[in-house]
Amino acid sequence: MKYRKFSGSDFDFLKDIVGKENVIEKKDLEPDFAHDELQTVSAFPDVHVYVTDKEQVQKIMKYANEQLIPVTVRGSGTGLVGACVPIEGGILLDTSKMNRFLELDKVNMTLTVEPGVLLMEIYEYVEKEGLFYAPDPGEKSATIGGNISTNAGGMRAVKYGVTRDWVRGLEVVLPNGELVHFGGKVVKNSSGYSLKDLIIGSEGTLGIVVSAILKLIPIPKKAVSLLIPFKDRIAAIDAVPKVISMETLPTAVEFLEKNSLRFSEEYLGKKIPNADYQAYLLVSFDGNTQEEIDHLVDLVSQLCVDELGAIDVYLVDTDERKQSVWSARGAFLEAIKASTSQIDECDVVLPRAHISEYLTFTQNLSQEIGIRIPYFGHAGDGNLHIYFCKDQLTDEEWLRKTEIGFKKMYLKAFELGGLVSGEHGIGYAKKPYLKMQVGETQIQLMKSIKQAFDPNNILNPGKII
Amino acid sequence: MKYRKFSGSDFDFLKDIVGKENVIEKKDLEPDFAHDELQTVSAFPDVHVYVTDKEQVQKIMKYANEQLIPVTVRGSGTGLVGACVPIEGGILLDTSKMNRFLELDKVNMTLTVEPGVLLMEIYEYVEKEGLFYAPDPGEKSATIGGNISTNAGGMRAVKYGVTRDWVRGLEVVLPNGELVHFGGKVVKNSSGYSLKDLIIGSEGTLGIVVSAILKLIPIPKKAVSLLIPFKDRIAAIDAVPKVISMETLPTAVEFLEKNSLRFSEEYLGKKIPNADYQAYLLVSFDGNTQEEIDHLVDLVSQLCVDELGAIDVYLVDTDERKQSVWSARGAFLEAIKASTSQIDECDVVLPRAHISEYLTFTQNLSQEIGIRIPYFGHAGDGNLHIYFCKDQLTDEEWLRKTEIGFKKMYLKAFELGGLVSGEHGIGYAKKPYLKMQVGETQIQLMKSIKQAFDPNNILNPGKII
Repeated sequence: MKYRKFSGSDFDFLKDIVGKENVIEKKDLEPDFAHDELQTVSAFPDVHVYVTDKEQVQKIMKYANEQLIPVTVRGSGTGLVGACVPIEGGILLDTSKMNRFLELDKVNMTLTVEPGVLLMEIYEYVEKEGLFYAPDPGEKSATIGGNISTNAGGMRAVKYGVTRDWVRGLEVVLPNGELVHFGGKVVKNSSGYSLKDLIIGSEGTLGIVVSAILKLIPIPKKAVSLLIPFKDRIAAIDAVPKVISMETLPTAVEFLEKNSLRFSEEYLGKKIPNADYQAYLLVSFDGNTQEEIDHLVDLVSQLCVDELGAIDVYLVDTDERKQSVWSARGAFLEAIKASTSQIDECDVVLPRAHISEYLTFTQNLSQEIGIRIPYFGHAGDGNLHIYFCKDQLTDEEWLRKTEIGFKKMYLKAFELGGLVSGEHGIGYAKKPYLKMQVGETQIQLMKSIKQAFDPNNILNPGKII
Repeated sequence: MKYRKFSGSDFDFLKDIVGKENVIEKKDLEPDFAHDELQTVSAFPDVHVYVTDKEQVQKIMKYANEQLIPVTVRGSGTGLVGACVPIEGGILLDTSKMNRFLELDKVNMTLTVEPGVLLMEIYEYVEKEGLFYAPDPGEKSATIGGNISTNAGGMRAVKYGVTRDWVRGLEVVLPNGELVHFGGKVVKNSSGYSLKDLIIGSEGTLGIVVSAILKLIPIPKKAVSLLIPFKDRIAAIDAVPKVISMETLPTAVEFLEKNSLRFSEEYLGKKIPNADYQAYLLVSFDGNTQEEIDHLVDLVSQLCVDELGAIDVYLVDTDERKQSVWSARGAFLEAIKASTSQIDECDVVLPRAHISEYLTFTQNLSQEIGIRIPYFGHAGDGNLHIYFCKDQLTDEEWLRKTEIGFKKMYLKAFELGGLVSGEHGIGYAKKPYLKMQVGETQIQLMKSIKQAFDPNNILNPGKII
């Protein structure tokens, strides 16, 4: 597909639609808008446009489709695989100002929002009404549009699932500018192919989400976290399936290791209490009565100490302890980033039985190819975040080692029944590995689907497939 | 698409693949295999073939695709919209003998099964291991393959969601015979377009599921049901959102009316206790301790009696009462079927706030067009099952009245934000209404997806779109 060169009349058209204050030409653009959080790929658009309502999105898409101008959607730009980077130039369509709460429907327990609303704003908005939006991706300043586009997961997936499970309906602008509705405020849906589920996780390549109907539930009244030290990582991770299958599902099961905690301590500049053991599980439960929570704490403590070799069980109960432990966990990515000049990541998801084996493989690989590979992850759902760090490597060594290293990492994951991405998506950076995972037939099916939605290939070209 | 006429050499080919005992020619075929449970459409295949493993499915599909012979998959034939009826003839591919439990993985809490395993067999298999497969469609003798193909829902959708939410991975034979894997034993997945979710609910038109990896959780140790009478239907249904948003989600909220209970009593030939009120909610909770359950029973009793006008709250606690109440609820469809010569159904799903309004509309319509329309439904998830009964109508009147009536019913549902089908699917019978609901653009998108998977249109032709 040959795209048309962007010209002065295109600027005029866009300014007419969204106002000149919402159109930033390439020459005036902040470099931050040429990449995402991880900066593995970088490209400037011809123009950066802020939209403020769905009619603007429709008009711009209709125009871009007729004029053959590529359009890439961007929310907060917190992605890690380059999905929002306009690698073919054209229009960077920014939904961050399209951030209204459209309706809180308490009877149907749904929240309807525009795509630019931030995840942290959603929590705040619904929780004061006694309601709960459960998905809990690490990056709270991501937009809900971005969360939907990558099917973001997060820590509470063990009990509550991922973004997909919390999206009841979507209003989507197709590449030709047409507005369509998928799903609705309904709990069940067996009405034809699930186009809604096709949009979720499609990373802005099939259509532009202009509003979303989210499922809510009554907020659990009580919650508790436990920090449980083990003699080593293997003991900790081996305990996970037993903790999960014990009784009530935990909301989250994270694993922490001394090394990663040290990183966080350095980065945050403060000590974390009880952080002197080799490995930990950080286990959370929620419920509605104190008795329920106490019962679960008793059960899991007994199980871990008596049967699974845990050294102790620390209740993360005071506000200070909670703040300290969860901020340490939350700071892992930032701490790793701050420790080196450049990183690239592997977001594999594995059957949870294989996490330990996979991490041993990773540590051996780190030795073998001479690259530092810190990691952390969601032990409860098998999703690992593994980071290659450039440190003192030359550009050439970095390229070579990441290429060899990632290939080995992904092949090993596939061998164990894992997938390329648990929650960060494919975007630009992980395309070759998706193909390795699913093979040519599935790539062709995905290409046909892309072709059906976007025959001119103007929407986020060059991503996923 | 012109299909090739079925011939003697095709029989020979099929007998070679599956053995002659598994090939039944049209002339020897039981009439039951020409229709599904509701018999709204009927057609004989040229041949009825039982497959027993995936390699057979692959070989047959490859052959059928090359030879342009239509193939329609059938499980238990318990569907209600004609999805398993071979309207273009050809091969009826029966998966009911492909019914092995392939793996119970307790560490990853997954169950891998072939498509012909029955829903009731799954419950039995996992529950004795302390595990729980939560989807609860009414028809327990349906196959899991059939459940996946319609994204079956059931009563526990309020708390636990529908079949889609419990399928982690699928092994699928494409129309050309190729075997592909979607998803896996993983909790999260952001690895390209969700082809798994496209297969779920596609009613056997995109591929043939030859094995499924189901999610399991620890089985709740305690459960309780409450039968709560109200002065009328409106009072009962108005109470539903308040019961659901109270605290812990109920597993199910069904509504029952005197009329439908009478039907069941007659059909079952026995009295149901406390069945003398106009309307009821049947509310269930589950949990892990008796305290938790007692707390919920107290809360919901107080709420219903003190604030929502309930007349009383009956604990459905003894085995006898449970058996009696739930068998009455379970017998509704059978009782309605037994009451008349022919029925057709409407399986709309609505935002739960609109159920009451919709049922009033239905009752008025019944008066207006002169047709008996009994109904029941899942108040907790907004999914209604509404039945037109032929009774003494002539064939001509029946056709005319159902056509007019269904059109009005669906248009009203769409006006209220509802969808054609909550759990029974589109199949053959509901095609015109799906098009009314989603419009031409979405139908075209679905057709393109169908074309991508099945360019020769040999797999279950004439269904959904």
